[in-house]
Amino acid sequence: MDKTTSGGFDLSYRRASEVRWQAHDLTKAVRAETLGQRPGVLWFTGLSGAGKSTIANLVEKKLFALGKHTYLLDGDNVRHGLNRDLGFTSEDRTENIRRIAEVAKLFADAGLIVLCAFIAPFRSERELARDLLEEGEFVEIFVDAPLAVAEARDPKGLYKKARAGLLKDFTGIDSPYEIPSNPELHLRTELLPPEELADAVVEHLRHHGRLG
Amino acid sequence: MDKTTSGGFDLSYRRASEVRWQAHDLTKAVRAETLGQRPGVLWFTGLSGAGKSTIANLVEKKLFALGKHTYLLDGDNVRHGLNRDLGFTSEDRTENIRRIAEVAKLFADAGLIVLCAFIAPFRSERELARDLLEEGEFVEIFVDAPLAVAEARDPKGLYKKARAGLLKDFTGIDSPYEIPSNPELHLRTELLPPEELADAVVEHLRHHGRLG
Repeated sequence: MDKTTSGGFDLSYRRASEVRWQAHDLTKAVRAETLGQRPGVLWFTGLSGAGKSTIANLVEKKLFALGKHTYLLDGDNVRHGLNRDLGFTSEDRTENIRRIAEVAKLFADAGLIVLCAFIAPFRSERELARDLLEEGEFVEIFVDAPLAVAEARDPKGLYKKARAGLLKDFTGIDSPYEIPSNPELHLRTELLPPEELADAVVEHLRHHGRLG
Repeated sequence: MDKTTSGGFDLSYRRASEVRWQAHDLTKAVRAETLGQRPGVLWFTGLSGAGKSTIANLVEKKLFALGKHTYLLDGDNVRHGLNRDLGFTSEDRTENIRRIAEVAKLFADAGLIVLCAFIAPFRSERELARDLLEEGEFVEIFVDAPLAVAEARDPKGLYKKARAGLLKDFTGIDSPYEIPSNPELHLRTELLPPEELADAVVEHLRHHGRLG
């Protein structure tokens, strides 16, 4: 089959809007306007078991229900794909966060609201992510639970392994978690249920005019 | 300022649609339906100077005019960000394409139509990208110009540098370009103008039901 293209295509789908946009570059502002939102990155940081994924998933569903366009980056879709070559050394963990931040930046450039659910234990990593984005685009959300609470939840059984010495450099056990000094939101998951905290995130975005 | 959240948020924005969606996971299919398109990756491959970026940019504007949601990955937004740590050794070039393919997969998962404009000279790299995606999602577009034509265009002056020995392993000069054996589209840029070739790409997507 000859797939070489030639003339004679159906151009009936051309519309006035096409002509109108031909002169424009598809900037982030144009994309965002089309999607009816301000792009940005919601970074949920906190200990394993603090509730990052739970709240991020709820926030995403709420934003979707409001007609917003979002994407969630988390260990499930990043560690087994883009970052499958990375381990858990200090160097690899920093590279892990760097790549995630760069990808989040691309998604924001595409006009989306990106939710990132990663421990990101070091302030320097989170600052790197913030610095990649424009003023106001990076929303640092500290998902806070006392270590004892997070460890008691232990949804993936990781604390148990870490305490048994099977996992090295586990955040909160033998690797530090640097508490955010000035997060945009501080959610205390031992005090309020996830639904209510997710509502708080949406309300924060609304209040700051990020939902169009 | 105490940023700890508590109750009492304005929940007046809750709508029936929110309740309706709460039970659903935000799958690729749900996102795609909302955006009115089938997500996918259009990979423009070919020599430097063949016309990849020119045509990809035109296609993106045409898709935008049709109300489609797209994103363009190219050297400009990848080499200086996500892949800034990579050079041009054979190993690094393969890693460059692998990461781009993984990011394209994430964008497709978000429901977008992703345009990738990269030389990707090796069949194995392009197959890797194709294999990451679902059947029918990867559209390989061979942007074909004879080396002499591409070299005469030399939009970035790279052939000149390569001929002078300043660039090593330059595709078409001292590194091979493996011609696609079965691309979905074969565009011959020395025969037809970019506008017409871009229309052919859009028409291909329409014909295959990818524009909703």
